[in-house]
Amino acid sequence: MSAIRHALNTKRADDFAAWYQEVISAADMAEESGVRGCMVIKPWGYGIWERIQRLMDDRIKAAGVQNCYFPIFIPLANFTREAEHVEGFAKEMAVVTHHRLIADGKGGLIPDPAAKLEEPLVVRPTSETIIGDAMARWIQSWRDLPLLTNQWANVVRWEMRTRMFLRTSEFLWQEGHTAHEGRDDARAETLRALEMYRACAEDDLAMPVIAGEKPENERFPGAVETWSIEAMMQDGKALQAGTSHYLGTNFAHAAGIKYQDREGTETLCHTTSWGVSTRLVGGIIMTHGDDDGLRVPPKIAPHQIVILPMLRDKPEDEPLLTYCEEVRAALAALSALGEPVRVLLDKRPGKAAAKRWDWVRKGAPVIIEVGSRDMEGGKLAVLRRDAIWNLETGKSAFTYPQREDFVAGAADLLAEIQQALYTEAAERRDANITRGVTTMDEVAAHFADDVKYPGWLEVKWAKPTGAVLDKVVEQLKALKLTLRNVSRDAEAADGTCIFTGEPAVERVLVARAY
Amino acid sequence: MSAIRHALNTKRADDFAAWYQEVISAADMAEESGVRGCMVIKPWGYGIWERIQRLMDDRIKAAGVQNCYFPIFIPLANFTREAEHVEGFAKEMAVVTHHRLIADGKGGLIPDPAAKLEEPLVVRPTSETIIGDAMARWIQSWRDLPLLTNQWANVVRWEMRTRMFLRTSEFLWQEGHTAHEGRDDARAETLRALEMYRACAEDDLAMPVIAGEKPENERFPGAVETWSIEAMMQDGKALQAGTSHYLGTNFAHAAGIKYQDREGTETLCHTTSWGVSTRLVGGIIMTHGDDDGLRVPPKIAPHQIVILPMLRDKPEDEPLLTYCEEVRAALAALSALGEPVRVLLDKRPGKAAAKRWDWVRKGAPVIIEVGSRDMEGGKLAVLRRDAIWNLETGKSAFTYPQREDFVAGAADLLAEIQQALYTEAAERRDANITRGVTTMDEVAAHFADDVKYPGWLEVKWAKPTGAVLDKVVEQLKALKLTLRNVSRDAEAADGTCIFTGEPAVERVLVARAY
Repeated sequence: MSAIRHALNTKRADDFAAWYQEVISAADMAEESGVRGCMVIKPWGYGIWERIQRLMDDRIKAAGVQNCYFPIFIPLANFTREAEHVEGFAKEMAVVTHHRLIADGKGGLIPDPAAKLEEPLVVRPTSETIIGDAMARWIQSWRDLPLLTNQWANVVRWEMRTRMFLRTSEFLWQEGHTAHEGRDDARAETLRALEMYRACAEDDLAMPVIAGEKPENERFPGAVETWSIEAMMQDGKALQAGTSHYLGTNFAHAAGIKYQDREGTETLCHTTSWGVSTRLVGGIIMTHGDDDGLRVPPKIAPHQIVILPMLRDKPEDEPLLTYCEEVRAALAALSALGEPVRVLLDKRPGKAAAKRWDWVRKGAPVIIEVGSRDMEGGKLAVLRRDAIWNLETGKSAFTYPQREDFVAGAADLLAEIQQALYTEAAERRDANITRGVTTMDEVAAHFADDVKYPGWLEVKWAKPTGAVLDKVVEQLKALKLTLRNVSRDAEAADGTCIFTGEPAVERVLVARAY
Repeated sequence: MSAIRHALNTKRADDFAAWYQEVISAADMAEESGVRGCMVIKPWGYGIWERIQRLMDDRIKAAGVQNCYFPIFIPLANFTREAEHVEGFAKEMAVVTHHRLIADGKGGLIPDPAAKLEEPLVVRPTSETIIGDAMARWIQSWRDLPLLTNQWANVVRWEMRTRMFLRTSEFLWQEGHTAHEGRDDARAETLRALEMYRACAEDDLAMPVIAGEKPENERFPGAVETWSIEAMMQDGKALQAGTSHYLGTNFAHAAGIKYQDREGTETLCHTTSWGVSTRLVGGIIMTHGDDDGLRVPPKIAPHQIVILPMLRDKPEDEPLLTYCEEVRAALAALSALGEPVRVLLDKRPGKAAAKRWDWVRKGAPVIIEVGSRDMEGGKLAVLRRDAIWNLETGKSAFTYPQREDFVAGAADLLAEIQQALYTEAAERRDANITRGVTTMDEVAAHFADDVKYPGWLEVKWAKPTGAVLDKVVEQLKALKLTLRNVSRDAEAADGTCIFTGEPAVERVLVARAY
């Protein structure tokens, strides 16, 4: 571990965007597919997503929400009938117009003009309208409520500028859709989903977030309230990492989702929707990555502990492999963080140092190397990925425990790493939220071009709406800033609105954002 | 349980196709979506699919195959370059031609003529070509082989005649794609996947299958060998329930999947692909359903045991619910068939009999009813869904064990039900494969119009190819018959080919099929 101080060519401090791309490639997580705006998610990236899915799905099921699957194609008419929805974002979408290919007579293929669809179909950008149709069929009476559904699916939004995991034309997500008897119940579900996202982000992904309500201008088209979790990336920018919408009766009206209430009156349902996506993987990279590559929190690491035998392609390899296999089996029999420990014995040929760096770049939480001398001493050489350097000496921070001691402490170690990554990120986040700024000049100074990673501001505002809010948004846009959310947990505000000079009513986060 | 003998309006013996649709609706598994050829998979149907996914995915991962995710859109050029592939089935496909909608000026939306794609994109019907592109990028040397990938995804094939789960325009599946150094290794992988499918079908789905090679005319376009598992439905028809293809170097040639071999020569990889889909859910219905609805094998049942308290909306409900909750907790703490027991306490309001029939139709393996008298005696009223009728008396087959005794035996009971469903299906399958038919007249008689559910024939044949095989296929088509596969486990054949009169070399299955 002596040779190179940095596994990557780019440091975060030098070019964060280039560093991000390099981590994805160096950790072998994903790559461009050659199909416009679509990526190929490779095993390590997909394995992390599978772990997020598993943990989130457990949380979704525990809340009594049932998974379904709805069609990928949405008839054009569904978009037309909900005008606000259409105007908002239902424009850049993939449209299917034909259902057959034929030879073009020149050795190629073309859409068959004789197989043109009467009504084009849209590849779902989100499923409110198609699930609304199903809800309208499924719900008759208040006894059918609440109706709590979710689907794991791919969706397509034709993005002009894409960035892997953060903004791709096709992405994977879950979308929860629920229908309720009234406003209170629907809002409670909106906030339950928000809290579920906060818990998953913080407890599973070790990614601290601010959970709060988005300002009016940032609402999902058609929503009455939009709530989000916002995470701070290491460059100080905000990542909207999940959203939960209270839709009022807007979508119920468009789709005809009605029920007989307890008095026998036909009434519109109040609905919600909420989603998180493969964007979370981008959030993990920019929260936990360092100048050596990715660091994956143990709860979502496909392999939590990787064992690397130092093979020499000689007969001595055999007892070494046996030793490593014993350690592997002992670790795999343990539970950590509520699940069986995921341990990999990496027997691939190749130099130990090269393989070690593979796993450093991928960010396996614990890397164990075993050579003949380790084996003879009954020891292991153990590297914690969250602390691979001894900050005093600048050298690698290997420790050399007895194997029994390591196994006995492995579950605690994984829990400790999970916690350490969270604490590191939370401290950085807290240190980079600035309060007390009261003028737009101060805002401009805070986000001046020569300030590298300025973090977020929490400012007091009067919660303007309509044209006044539009003006605020314009002002901020000139500084490349956006309103993020009003933290659920923020103190009430006194004093003056930084934007309007009116009495402030709450505190809003202002930041650059992905 | 006295009232009605049949929960469904249609019996299998009267109209199998109508019975199938009725089970799907009565068990609340899926419904038509209103979008052409696409279904909505409802919680009970999707829950079964999730169980299949989980168990199959464990098998896939155990084989060292890594999950990835590839784009849903495939450029037209990918289909053009593999001519045989295009001719085969790449015709009826959803084609994306535009990436934006605009208002049509009449209150509707249309594809924006200004946003026409330069090259149309096809919604994947299968992913050989797009994954082939990735493999060509990923593989340089023999050290990179074998490359073992899989994805869980939706695919679209524009089917003209659809039937829920069995043939829908959009369906869910997994597709394994692997690349190898040579023919032997690729064929071994093809057969490993086949054996994995057999094991999953028989051990997890309790659905007996014949694993074997498809005749030339039934091969996947571009494949050198296609293998399948074929299951016999209760109407005697065959369901192709999974396929595994040895693709030779055909797709490697088209996509340029090459490696430097151990001698340093650039060489084409040998590739395979293999898949199973939501079609398996249709297979479960037609294997295990009865005239009361579905019966789900315990290994894939979302809920294995359902507890129904006989609530009266009175104060006595409280101790009853406590009693039921104790039973639930005791069962949930158990393991059965290698996993924690999945038990549901169904507290919904409603009459006990109506709720019982809900679960009978859905096919929960064990249904427990608990009334006040059961509670006072420390007992439970237990119904095995695979044997809800006492065949001697025609009455329901409730048993009334002490609760401790039931809990103590619950894991064994679930294993016993799993086995019983398999045995019942295997015996029926074996009783309905006829051997010894040696003339086409006998074949015609066997499949005469007045024979209701004729089952399958295993006949000796000379394994004809080309034009001779085409003629055989035509002959069979006139009787609505198809060649299914040549069982991996069949004895070698002697005697004469039933079709050509030449010396027979093997035994092929002939059947009507879905």
